[in-house]
Amino acid sequence: MIKFHSDIDVTVDVSRIREIINDIQSDPMGGWYDLPETYDHAEFDKIQATAKQIQNNSKYLVCIGIGGSYLGHRALIDALQPKSPTKILYAGNSLSTRELNCLLDTLGDSDFSINVISKSGTTTEPAVAFRLLKAKLQEKYGNKASERIFATTDARKGALYEEAVAEGYARFVVPDNIGGRYSVLTAAGLLPLAVAGVNIDQLMSGAATERAANLDNSESAAIRYATMRADLLKKNYDVEILASFEPCMQYFEEWCKQLFGESEGKDKQGIFPTSVIYTTDLHSLGQYLQDGRRNIFETMLRFSEEGAPAVTVPQLAKDLDGLKYLEGKTLDFLNTKALEATVAAHRDGGIPVSEITIPTLDEKSLGALVYFFELSCALSAKLSGVNPFDQPGVEAYKRNMFHLLGKPGF
Amino acid sequence: MIKFHSDIDVTVDVSRIREIINDIQSDPMGGWYDLPETYDHAEFDKIQATAKQIQNNSKYLVCIGIGGSYLGHRALIDALQPKSPTKILYAGNSLSTRELNCLLDTLGDSDFSINVISKSGTTTEPAVAFRLLKAKLQEKYGNKASERIFATTDARKGALYEEAVAEGYARFVVPDNIGGRYSVLTAAGLLPLAVAGVNIDQLMSGAATERAANLDNSESAAIRYATMRADLLKKNYDVEILASFEPCMQYFEEWCKQLFGESEGKDKQGIFPTSVIYTTDLHSLGQYLQDGRRNIFETMLRFSEEGAPAVTVPQLAKDLDGLKYLEGKTLDFLNTKALEATVAAHRDGGIPVSEITIPTLDEKSLGALVYFFELSCALSAKLSGVNPFDQPGVEAYKRNMFHLLGKPGF
Repeated sequence: MIKFHSDIDVTVDVSRIREIINDIQSDPMGGWYDLPETYDHAEFDKIQATAKQIQNNSKYLVCIGIGGSYLGHRALIDALQPKSPTKILYAGNSLSTRELNCLLDTLGDSDFSINVISKSGTTTEPAVAFRLLKAKLQEKYGNKASERIFATTDARKGALYEEAVAEGYARFVVPDNIGGRYSVLTAAGLLPLAVAGVNIDQLMSGAATERAANLDNSESAAIRYATMRADLLKKNYDVEILASFEPCMQYFEEWCKQLFGESEGKDKQGIFPTSVIYTTDLHSLGQYLQDGRRNIFETMLRFSEEGAPAVTVPQLAKDLDGLKYLEGKTLDFLNTKALEATVAAHRDGGIPVSEITIPTLDEKSLGALVYFFELSCALSAKLSGVNPFDQPGVEAYKRNMFHLLGKPGF
Repeated sequence: MIKFHSDIDVTVDVSRIREIINDIQSDPMGGWYDLPETYDHAEFDKIQATAKQIQNNSKYLVCIGIGGSYLGHRALIDALQPKSPTKILYAGNSLSTRELNCLLDTLGDSDFSINVISKSGTTTEPAVAFRLLKAKLQEKYGNKASERIFATTDARKGALYEEAVAEGYARFVVPDNIGGRYSVLTAAGLLPLAVAGVNIDQLMSGAATERAANLDNSESAAIRYATMRADLLKKNYDVEILASFEPCMQYFEEWCKQLFGESEGKDKQGIFPTSVIYTTDLHSLGQYLQDGRRNIFETMLRFSEEGAPAVTVPQLAKDLDGLKYLEGKTLDFLNTKALEATVAAHRDGGIPVSEITIPTLDEKSLGALVYFFELSCALSAKLSGVNPFDQPGVEAYKRNMFHLLGKPGF
């Protein structure tokens, strides 16, 4: 379903890849690998039913979460632009006063619910936002407020788990064997997605298809992409530009950046993940990419089907703008030619360019793409000799912050 | 007004800086340097009057432009979130069918006007969008359509200039001596900004203050920042992370990326400009920044005044989330401590971190900040031996694209 093309010679070390996949499957944090087949169908049905209930009584669902409890569902909602009576808003992903005031303005007097997504319940940003928004909910709905709070958290322990049990919030589970950045296909992503109108059945089915495509196939797209990344890093290509020609993919790229950055950026090593939206950024970063330092490689995301409804360049009586040669052509045709032109220009400029091709912008394709990147990332990290499932460095600023904020014990 | 702080020793080469500033002032593309003092006041008044007229008759103003004709005003509008009866929409900055359909959906049957911003009028993306939206305008307003088209273009020549004269569109000028990425304080930025409700008098006044702060002061913030950048590049720090703790600054950072990337990314050299929004991205790129490759330096944007209205962490009877120690503290206090904690953590991790401090998020401060970055960028590029005002590399993909699209002559 997902295709990978690169001009670079990629030689897959088949036995090493098989070894790594076995390692992943037996890793305590490798639960995402089999998830598309093994997920909890009873909880999945509860997510669907809860989503309908929220759509019936809430103009807004405020999703409180940060990192892996935020980027995944936001990425897919922005990309798919589904229709729903309930709009998703986001909180707890920064400490900005301006951002929070803006959210409160938007909420106004409208009916809303909260989905608080946190494994522990004590991460500062979401915990603070939850306090603030819970107060607003209680003010508005009194003792009915707890019926509008949906907690996605650990199955058995932690501050949010305990509060949810004590207050009777509906609960959903972040599994123990799946880290935040690999969690979008668990309840952490699925409840917001279902409320936003995304067909989560199709999403899981796409992921399952991509998982199957990698079984007993050592030349799969994900395996070749991962091998290429590890090879390029060895040759000191240490910046990857992930490029899409669809602006709605911006947050999907942000999700990829977390996935790769947190998985690979360790031991003073790793590829620095960055992203662009074309053709927009050809008019900003294009100069650098064409002529700047050559430690960069580029990965293009492309869709093989046209966007609908088609838009066609209109005919004009006078050709003042010199576009007569494009009259009757679709915008998609232009966008595809721009992609091909960019691939050629950047290759000429000395950048290794590869292409990941997805059929179209729908749930099935993006479910597959999520799984493709999760697998590629884990493989690529392990090929480079780092653990894709820990994040020892993210504690440093937290420890400093707790100390500066006067948290007891720091 | 703008302060710069770095732990790195910065030794300014005073005579070289004076030489460079003289070069800039006499450069055919150095018009932005004196602009805050020398701008055309008659056109400025016309911009203000036109903005009122558009606010009176249009629910939307569609700004058609790409690169320097798009990012500058978008950056300031997103950052300042001004109030206006007219909402700004953007077109012509990609070739996405989905994006254009989305815009057409938003416009619906509402009253709208167009500001087409293009030096030549023949750049593919905006020219195609202009054809499409002009057709919609003509369908809606017939021969009154031309009263709703505002052309910001060359003063004397080019396709858009000729069309504007022929059709009687109101015209505004992109000066010959200011390149796209330095043009936000010309009509290319000022008309959309004024329509959006930004106080453009204050914006120009802030820029003038920052210009004055650099006259006869070789230790100014911009000069030290530029010197530090050129020094770090010599030491092979070739990725700069520009960081803000305010999500509304995302597009301002995009504007900076164009400014620096197009000015410096030449001759297989230059600092690769990238950006983050904290604390959001501490939960995604934080791990890489703490522990990844050490070719990175980081520049923090901070505001010295608090955001209003203040938001305070509420008191709760039970301390389930462990936040009791934060009760009564403002969100701004937390955000400031997060910034300080991040600076300390990243310095410990081996990243050179510096800080640019601006008073507050208002027109005067951001006008100063625009000028600060324009000057820093030109100085830094010239200290590294490249021309900050050309962009020879952006033509490569255009030539390829014209060839693939079958443009006559390519």
